[in-house]
Amino acid sequence: MSVLQYTEVSSLASDKIHVLGRMGRQRQPLPIFFNGGGVEVVVTGSEFWIDVETDSDFHEMWIALEINGAFISRQMLLPGEHSLCLFRSMDPTVAKRVRFYRELQAMGDDVKVKLLIKGFKHDGEFQSVPKYERKLEFIGDSITSGEGSYGAFDDVDWIPMYMSASANYATMTSKALNADYHLISQGGWGVFTGWDNDVRHNLPSVYEKVCGLAPGEMNKELGAAEEYDFASWQPDAIIVNLGTNDVTSFNQPEFVNPDDGKTYKMRLNSDGTRNREDELKIVDAIVGFLTMLRKHNPNAQIVWCYGMLGSDLNLVITEGINKYKEKAGDEKISFFQLPDTTMDTYGSHMHPGVKSHQNASKELVHYLRIKLGWAD
Amino acid sequence: MSVLQYTEVSSLASDKIHVLGRMGRQRQPLPIFFNGGGVEVVVTGSEFWIDVETDSDFHEMWIALEINGAFISRQMLLPGEHSLCLFRSMDPTVAKRVRFYRELQAMGDDVKVKLLIKGFKHDGEFQSVPKYERKLEFIGDSITSGEGSYGAFDDVDWIPMYMSASANYATMTSKALNADYHLISQGGWGVFTGWDNDVRHNLPSVYEKVCGLAPGEMNKELGAAEEYDFASWQPDAIIVNLGTNDVTSFNQPEFVNPDDGKTYKMRLNSDGTRNREDELKIVDAIVGFLTMLRKHNPNAQIVWCYGMLGSDLNLVITEGINKYKEKAGDEKISFFQLPDTTMDTYGSHMHPGVKSHQNASKELVHYLRIKLGWAD
Amino acid sequence: MSVLQYTEVSSLASDKIHVLGRMGRQRQPLPIFFNGGGVEVVVTGSEFWIDVETDSDFHEMWIALEINGAFISRQMLLPGEHSLCLFRSMDPTVAKRVRFYRELQAMGDDVKVKLLIKGFKHDGEFQSVPKYERKLEFIGDSITSGEGSYGAFDDVDWIPMYMSASANYATMTSKALNADYHLISQGGWGVFTGWDNDVRHNLPSVYEKVCGLAPGEMNKELGAAEEYDFASWQPDAIIVNLGTNDVTSFNQPEFVNPDDGKTYKMRLNSDGTRNREDELKIVDAIVGFLTMLRKHNPNAQIVWCYGMLGSDLNLVITEGINKYKEKAGDEKISFFQLPDTTMDTYGSHMHPGVKSHQNASKELVHYLRIKLGWAD
Amino acid sequence: MSVLQYTEVSSLASDKIHVLGRMGRQRQPLPIFFNGGGVEVVVTGSEFWIDVETDSDFHEMWIALEINGAFISRQMLLPGEHSLCLFRSMDPTVAKRVRFYRELQAMGDDVKVKLLIKGFKHDGEFQSVPKYERKLEFIGDSITSGEGSYGAFDDVDWIPMYMSASANYATMTSKALNADYHLISQGGWGVFTGWDNDVRHNLPSVYEKVCGLAPGEMNKELGAAEEYDFASWQPDAIIVNLGTNDVTSFNQPEFVNPDDGKTYKMRLNSDGTRNREDELKIVDAIVGFLTMLRKHNPNAQIVWCYGMLGSDLNLVITEGINKYKEKAGDEKISFFQLPDTTMDTYGSHMHPGVKSHQNASKELVHYLRIKLGWAD
Repeated sequence: MSVLQYTEVSSLASDKIHVLGRMGRQRQPLPIFFNGGGVEVVVTGSEFWIDVETDSDFHEMWIALEINGAFISRQMLLPGEHSLCLFRSMDPTVAKRVRFYRELQAMGDDVKVKLLIKGFKHDGEFQSVPKYERKLEFIGDSITSGEGSYGAFDDVDWIPMYMSASANYATMTSKALNADYHLISQGGWGVFTGWDNDVRHNLPSVYEKVCGLAPGEMNKELGAAEEYDFASWQPDAIIVNLGTNDVTSFNQPEFVNPDDGKTYKMRLNSDGTRNREDELKIVDAIVGFLTMLRKHNPNAQIVWCYGMLGSDLNLVITEGINKYKEKAGDEKISFFQLPDTTMDTYGSHMHPGVKSHQNASKELVHYLRIKLGWAD
Repeated sequence: MSVLQYTEVSSLASDKIHVLGRMGRQRQPLPIFFNGGGVEVVVTGSEFWIDVETDSDFHEMWIALEINGAFISRQMLLPGEHSLCLFRSMDPTVAKRVRFYRELQAMGDDVKVKLLIKGFKHDGEFQSVPKYERKLEFIGDSITSGEGSYGAFDDVDWIPMYMSASANYATMTSKALNADYHLISQGGWGVFTGWDNDVRHNLPSVYEKVCGLAPGEMNKELGAAEEYDFASWQPDAIIVNLGTNDVTSFNQPEFVNPDDGKTYKMRLNSDGTRNREDELKIVDAIVGFLTMLRKHNPNAQIVWCYGMLGSDLNLVITEGINKYKEKAGDEKISFFQLPDTTMDTYGSHMHPGVKSHQNASKELVHYLRIKLGWAD
Repeated sequence: MSVLQYTEVSSLASDKIHVLGRMGRQRQPLPIFFNGGGVEVVVTGSEFWIDVETDSDFHEMWIALEINGAFISRQMLLPGEHSLCLFRSMDPTVAKRVRFYRELQAMGDDVKVKLLIKGFKHDGEFQSVPKYERKLEFIGDSITSGEGSYGAFDDVDWIPMYMSASANYATMTSKALNADYHLISQGGWGVFTGWDNDVRHNLPSVYEKVCGLAPGEMNKELGAAEEYDFASWQPDAIIVNLGTNDVTSFNQPEFVNPDDGKTYKMRLNSDGTRNREDELKIVDAIVGFLTMLRKHNPNAQIVWCYGMLGSDLNLVITEGINKYKEKAGDEKISFFQLPDTTMDTYGSHMHPGVKSHQNASKELVHYLRIKLGWAD
Repeated sequence: MSVLQYTEVSSLASDKIHVLGRMGRQRQPLPIFFNGGGVEVVVTGSEFWIDVETDSDFHEMWIALEINGAFISRQMLLPGEHSLCLFRSMDPTVAKRVRFYRELQAMGDDVKVKLLIKGFKHDGEFQSVPKYERKLEFIGDSITSGEGSYGAFDDVDWIPMYMSASANYATMTSKALNADYHLISQGGWGVFTGWDNDVRHNLPSVYEKVCGLAPGEMNKELGAAEEYDFASWQPDAIIVNLGTNDVTSFNQPEFVNPDDGKTYKMRLNSDGTRNREDELKIVDAIVGFLTMLRKHNPNAQIVWCYGMLGSDLNLVITEGINKYKEKAGDEKISFFQLPDTTMDTYGSHMHPGVKSHQNASKELVHYLRIKLGWAD
C-alpha cells in the first residue's frame, strides 16, 4: 500500500468533484441533506477512502456506494466520525468513478440526523468528473424516499434500513438518461396534507428552503433553513410524484394540529365518495405548488407522475393541473401515470419493491425521452 | 367418422350457445358485426363444423378459432358460403369449448362486408355454456380493433390481415377476468374527430345503433341501423379507449366534409401548442359521450383508458371527464393510463403489437380487479 | 382487382422460389413431406394465391402462412384441391416475402396424408428470394414436431391441430440465425426405440430416404422412398434432439413387434434403475446414428440436444457420443442440454408450449453462434 | 434504547444458533472459512449487534446481512475488532431472523484472511432457529465464489469486492429449496488443474480438510487443516460445478510448479482440438473425485453441474462421470447443464452477473425438485 494523501472536499476544484443533490452554501464539511445526495469523483490509485461524520438519535444514517456505475455496498452508519475505505488493491493506473450517497431521506422527526462529508484519503489523482447531459428534479413522498425498497414483504417497522436511493425509480431514471438529479421527498407527506391529516406535512411548505425537511438548530447551522438558490441548478424536468398520502388522509382519523390546536380531517361522504370541498383543497394546493415550481424553474418541463400505489387521485390531480394550466397559460406541464405496484412487485410494508421501481423507471424513461426530445 | 347432424343457430336453446359481441334482433342467420363477436359452444363428439356466409369487396373477412381457451387457427374468408371444420378426430366423449369469432372490425368503408353464422354440423351433443361472471364493454379506435397486432414492423398496408381480436388487450383482459365482452371500435376514429379531421368519424355518433359503423342497405336489413337495446346487456364496466386520433388531427391537413361542404381542422397555435378552442371541442365531446354512456348504462363503472400510443391528450381527456363529473355528480367514472408502446412492442404500421397489448392488459386487469372489487 | 396470372411451381427459376425442407426429385406438383417444409417467394402485386392439393384420412393437413417474417395465418386443410388467397388489397409496387409451410409432421400412420404445391396466381412479379446464410438440419421426435405447441394445458388428443412448425424451437432458431432448415421428426420415436417399446420407431431407420416416415404407394410415387441426395443440401450443423422416447420406453409395457412376432421391452432393474444391457442398446444406436450422419454430412457440426422434457438420459447419450467420438476420431460433435419445460411453459398434453420452445431456441441460438463462430 | 446484553456464540444452545457453512471444531470464537458461511439467529428486541474479528493483508473481508430473508447490507471489513449493529429501533416484540455471512471465498493467497464471530449484543431473546428441511453442498470455482457477481462490466480487478455469496446461484438455490448449504469453492481452480496449468489448484486436494483452501499457521490453529468430520453434516445432494478452469488451461501457457520444479501444460493438438492424453487426466480426476465424494457422502445425490461459462467440456465431464459410474456401479450421480452466461447477463470481468446466477438457480431448483422428489 502506498502512502495515502488527504484531500478536503473544499480543496477539490469544481470539475474534480460532483455533488449530488441539493446543496446549501456550506462546502466544508459538506452536508448531505437528502437521499440520493452525495459526492462523485473519478480517481486513480489503488486505494480510496472517504471521511464522514454522522449523527442521529433513533434514525441512523445509511449510505451506499457505487463504483463505475455498479452497486457495491450499502451500510448503516451510527453516530461518529467514520473513515470508510471505498476501494483498495485495485489497478492504480485505472481511473474509477466513485459515487458515495445517502440512502436515508431527510429525517424530519430526528433533529440529530446528519451526514457530513469531510474529505478523501487516496494514493491516486482526481480527474475531471464527466458532466451529466441532463438535470432532473424529483419531488415526492415515501415512494421517492425508497421506503420499502429493501426489506421482506412482512416487515412493517418504519426505519432507515428499508429506505433507499439505491433501489429507487428516481435514481434508475436519472442513470438511464445520464442525468444529474435532485431528490426532495418525505415519507407520509402530500401536496396538501400528510397521510394522517397532519396538514403541516406538505412538500410545498418546504420546497423553497435548502432543506426545509431538516429541522432544528444543527441543521440550521448547516444551512438547511436558508432560501434555496434556484438559479444555481435549473432542471430540464421536474417530476412531482405526490398524491398518495393526500388520498390516504380521507380514510384516516382526524388530526389535531398542535401548532394551532385545530382539528383537521379530509372527509368522506356518506356514500363513501370523497367530500368535494376537501378534494378542492388538494386541487388548490396543486395549483399553488405548480405556480411555485414555475416561479423558480421557468424553463423546466413539469411532469406530475402518480400511480405507483394506486391511481385513485388521477382526476383530482389532473383537475389541479388543468386549473393551473388554464390560469397560468403554461403548456410545459403534463400528467403521466406510473405503473401500479402489484403483489409481485411489493417490497416491505406494502411499498414498492425494487421491481416496482424498475417498472416505473422504464415507463418514465421512455416518456421523458419523447417529451423532452432526448434521443438515446 | 360418424354421421353429422346439422343444427341451426336459432334452434339452439339460449344456454347452449353464447353469442359474443353486440347483437341486433336477427338470430338466423346470426350477423356478427364487430371484431371479437362470434359464437361460443360447448360440444361433445369427434367432429365439429360451422357454416358461415361472408361477403366483402376489398376488405375480406378474417376469423379466428379457440378451443378450450387456446388459440388454434386464424384465416381469411373470401365471399361465399363456407363450411369450416373446427375440430375432428377428437375424443367424442369429452366436451370441447369452442369459440369462433370475427377478427375484422366493423368495416365502414366496405358496405359489402358481412359475416353470418348459420349453423353447426356435429356428431356430439351441445352442453350448457358456462356463464361469464362479468361483463365488459370496450369502445375504441384502431388500437381496440387490433390494427397492427399482426404483421411485420415495416408493413404499412391498411388491410384486414393486420387487424384482430385474437391479439388484443380487450380480449386478453376479458379472458383474464372471465368476462363476457363487447367491443365497439373503428380505426381512425375519435371521440370528437377522426385522425384526418373528418369530424363525422366519432364513436358517439354510432354508439346508440346496433352497429352504426356498418352502413348500407345490406347491413340495415341485418339490423345494424336499429336502436340498440341497451337493457339486453348491461356491462359492469365500460372501457373507453379514445383520444389517439383526436390528438393526431391537430397535425393533419384540413378536411372538407362532403356532407356539408365545410372545412374542418383542429388547429395548432404558432408556438406548436394546441388551439384552446379546438381542445375544448374534444372536452365537450367527452362530456357528451360520457352523458350518453351513463344514460344507457346506469350502473357501469366507466373507465377512460388511454396511452398505448402516447399520452399527449391526458390533460384534455381528464378535463372532459372532470367537467362531466362535476356536471353530472357522477362518481363512477375514472381515468386510467395504459402503458405506451415502445420500439420493443410495436406490431406493424406503428401500432401496438401483441406484447404491447399484453402489457396493457396486465395493467388493466390489475386496475379493474381493484376498482370493481373483483378478487381472483 | 387486376387480372391474375397463373405460374406453376416448376416454371419458376430456381432463384425465384425457395423450397423449405427436404425434397425429392419431383417438382411439379411439389410434394411437401415434413413440418416446416413449404415454399418461400418474394412477389410484388396486390394479390397472391397458392394452389395446393391435400389428402388425408383421419389426420388432416395443417398449414401456416408468414408474410415478411410475421405469422399471419394457420388453418386446417381437408382433402381436396385448394386455391388459397395469401394476401390481397396490398400495395402492388411493394415486394412481399411469403412463406407458406406445413404445420403437420410426416404422418406415418395415415398413408393418405399429402400436401402438394402446384402453383401461384398473382398480379405481380416474382423477385429473387434472398439466400439464407446458413443451413441447419433438425432431427427429432414430438418436440421437434411441435406437438403440444398449440392447445390448452388439459388437451390430450393426439391430433394434427396441436402440432406445428410455427411455434417450434427449430423454426425460431433458424429464423434467429437467418438459416435455411430441414426438419425430420416423428412424435413417439427415438434413436433406438419408440416410447412404447416399438423398436421399429427409430429415426436412423428412415434418415437415408427422402422421407422414410411417409409410407405407402402414394408417397412412394411422390419420391418419399427414394435415397435422399445428401449432396444436394449440406447443413452447417445438424441438431439431433432424440432420447426422450428412448428413456420413456423403460417405464412402458412390452411391445410385440408384428413384423417379427418378437417381444420388446427396455427393462428396469428391481431397484428402479435402468437395465445396463438395454442402456447399451441406446448407446450403440447413438454410435450407429452418428456414424450415419457423418457419412452423409462430412463437414457438419453435429450437436446432440436434449432436455426439453427432462434430462434423465444425459449420461447415456453422452456415453454414446463419447464412444462414437473415440471410435471415429471425430471432434465436430458436441452435446448441448436444452432447458426443461416447467409448469409455466407446458403447452398441451404435457409437451413443450410456445414459451418452452422460445426458451430452448434462445439457448440454442447462443450456443450455435459461439460454436460455429456466427457473429450476429 | 434498552440495556444491551452480551452473549457469546458458544453460550447459545445449539437450537438457538444455526451455523452456515462447513465448520471445524472451534466454536469460540467461531471461524468462518467459506463464502456463504456465517450465523443465523432468530431474536426479539429492538436492537442487535454482532461482534467479529477480521484480519487480512491485501484481500479484505466482505460480509453481507439478511433480515427475514431479505438482503439488507453488504460491506467491507478491514482488519480489526468490529461491533456491527445489524438492526435497531425495531419492534421489540417481533422476532427477526438474522443471517450474517461471509461474501469472500476462502482466500488461499492471503494467509492472514480471517473472519471470527465472537458474540452478540442484544436487548431481546434468542428463539429457536427453524430447521432447514434439506442440505446441499456446492463445490466449485470462481462461479461458485460469486466472482463478478458485483461490479461493472468493464471491471477486471481480481478483488474481494466483486465476489459474493449474496448474488450467487448456490445461495439462491438453497433459499428456494429451504435448504441449509455448504459452499466450497475457489476461483481459478479445477477438478484436475487450475486455469493457468497450476495442477496444485484442484478441489479434490482440499476437499477432505475442514478448509484445505485456507493455508498458514493461523488457519491451522483455527482448525482449517484438520480432517473434516463428514458424519457431522450429510448433504442430500452435492452439486459439483467444476470444469471451467480445466478447459481454460488448454489455452494457457505452461506452468512451472515450484513444488516439484516440473512444467505442466494441458496441450492442444495442431488442429486446435484437445490432446487426448490431457483430456484423460481430467477424466481420471473426475473419477477420483467422485469416488472421494461418495466415500464421504454415501447417500447423497451427486449432480455435476456445468455450463455457466460455456459447455465445451460437456463430453469430457460426462466421460468421467460415466467411467466412475460404470466402475462404482453408482446410480446416484447425474449431469446437469446450467444455462450459459450471455452479453445480457455478464457481471464484471466476464463472469456471471446476478441475472446469470438467477437463470442458473431457476433451472437447478427445478431439476433438484424433480430429481430428489422435493415437491414445493
